[in-house]
Amino acid sequence: MNVLVIGAAGMIGSKLGRRLARDGSLAGKAISRLELHDLVPCDVPAGVPVGSSAGDLSSAGEAERIIAARPDIIFHLAAIVSGEAEQDFEKGYRINMDGTRALLEAIRASATRPRLVFASSIAVFGAPFPEAIDDCFFNTPLTSYGTQKAISELLISDYSRKGFVDGISVRLPTICVRPGKPNKAASGFFSNIIREPLAGHEAILPVSDGVMHWHASPRAALGFLLHAASLDLAAVGPRRAITMPGVAVSVGEQIAALRKVAGDAVARRIRREPDPFLESIVAGWPRNFAPRRALELGFTADRSFEEIIRIHIEDELGGRIV
Amino acid sequence: MNVLVIGAAGMIGSKLGRRLARDGSLAGKAISRLELHDLVPCDVPAGVPVGSSAGDLSSAGEAERIIAARPDIIFHLAAIVSGEAEQDFEKGYRINMDGTRALLEAIRASATRPRLVFASSIAVFGAPFPEAIDDCFFNTPLTSYGTQKAISELLISDYSRKGFVDGISVRLPTICVRPGKPNKAASGFFSNIIREPLAGHEAILPVSDGVMHWHASPRAALGFLLHAASLDLAAVGPRRAITMPGVAVSVGEQIAALRKVAGDAVARRIRREPDPFLESIVAGWPRNFAPRRALELGFTADRSFEEIIRIHIEDELGGRIV
Repeated sequence: MNVLVIGAAGMIGSKLGRRLARDGSLAGKAISRLELHDLVPCDVPAGVPVGSSAGDLSSAGEAERIIAARPDIIFHLAAIVSGEAEQDFEKGYRINMDGTRALLEAIRASATRPRLVFASSIAVFGAPFPEAIDDCFFNTPLTSYGTQKAISELLISDYSRKGFVDGISVRLPTICVRPGKPNKAASGFFSNIIREPLAGHEAILPVSDGVMHWHASPRAALGFLLHAASLDLAAVGPRRAITMPGVAVSVGEQIAALRKVAGDAVARRIRREPDPFLESIVAGWPRNFAPRRALELGFTADRSFEEIIRIHIEDELGGRIV
Repeated sequence: MNVLVIGAAGMIGSKLGRRLARDGSLAGKAISRLELHDLVPCDVPAGVPVGSSAGDLSSAGEAERIIAARPDIIFHLAAIVSGEAEQDFEKGYRINMDGTRALLEAIRASATRPRLVFASSIAVFGAPFPEAIDDCFFNTPLTSYGTQKAISELLISDYSRKGFVDGISVRLPTICVRPGKPNKAASGFFSNIIREPLAGHEAILPVSDGVMHWHASPRAALGFLLHAASLDLAAVGPRRAITMPGVAVSVGEQIAALRKVAGDAVARRIRREPDPFLESIVAGWPRNFAPRRALELGFTADRSFEEIIRIHIEDELGGRIV
């Protein structure tokens, strides 16, 4: 089978490409061809035959070009991130909304009906919230990024209902521990306070210990995408946007887990430097979910935040803590 | 003040144009200019100075042209109806989604910040439902029309949040009694079984008496739009899509109300001719709502289905029943 990953140069996309190339199969079938696409060139992993191309999904003819090989399964992970979509209104809508629509229109015109797995986000939700957000809670995004994700979900559901594609939108929790350098994303501290101390560096904690949030490891996120690719969508019905399970923990519980896994010396590398503006942004973010549908459909979260830390140590640090 | 009505040739749009021209004021201010726009030419009512034009909102330059006079309040009622949007996928998305976006983009480029009142629909909801749909229930449309309305709502909320427009989406109930000839809309029977007997004609009832639905008179719908135009949206906050109040009645209760208002001879003009296919379509439609936000914001529904019938007799039949 022929598999396409769009957004394959990103953090999750590159992990997914490597995993698919290594596994050599998906949904119980051998992968004959893996195509990787992003705005920038992708690393080409070893394993199955891999093609790679770079371009803007929203530009004329690009979506048609990248599905010309008639993929059986498409992972659509391409997006301008939240902060950039908020700063550059036009670019966010072009990539995150028009890009998805261009892909759907190219698929409709091709008269194929591939499985489409779309990486959506809990940013489709905006405060105020109930204590735990259930599967029937409405979308009131407080960012353009969240709006674009919610619109993409609606399009994918409608194109699926009409039989033009067989799509599913998986709303990913915040990915933690995000590997790489600290970045300026407002949510960066959730990962920084784990990754940096484990690497021997100091980390800044800009919010109070009581801030609760919804997390999944990169490994769990890959699991969601792969499971969504192989799921029987007849059981899902016409409601094709599904909130993924995660681990709801407070920052204080994150730090306690770090202390338990790596010791007090590591946990002491977190320095509290409150930022009231950032705290006010974070107050609008989801804290906790009751993702019953996803659990019933067999999506599996990390078991605890300790496990999330151990996964980071295994997958990113070769098992070693500095 | 300068007022624009887009979709002014439709049933609600033409009533709104006549009402604004007659009132001569809106939100406590005199109307200096009323501009009417539709795909087809509009009737020009007497009263305030009225301009009128015809064109496709989604075609290049049209949205810029119709807001060139910098309206203070815009009513956006233009849409391809549900059945046609379902049959002509491309046309539905072009008019109902791209048209709304073109309007929002023209407003953004104009650097004005008009009040935008968007006529949305309970078609943003799709079964299964709870007994009464509350204000936090999610949008899972089962038609392309409903999808396009839900996407328009999301866009209007995001453009409002960014300060490009001051928008509000009012989700209208099914309008009953719809004046004019019986049409082929799947929902047509809700009006047909009242309007036709009152005019001395037989009406076909294709569903069972237990079918419940959510209704508002044309007069109530105008009230919603006018109230939305004058409302203080600071009190509404960032959640700009609001389900309007209505009257939840079963078909049996509709008929009982008709009998009470117009007598048994009129009610006997309804002929039962069950259509299992239509009944299955209707089973996916909303039955009842708990529209608390709208009520708190001062939107007012009809008091009963009897009142809905009396409004039809007053406003459309000059008070006379055949």
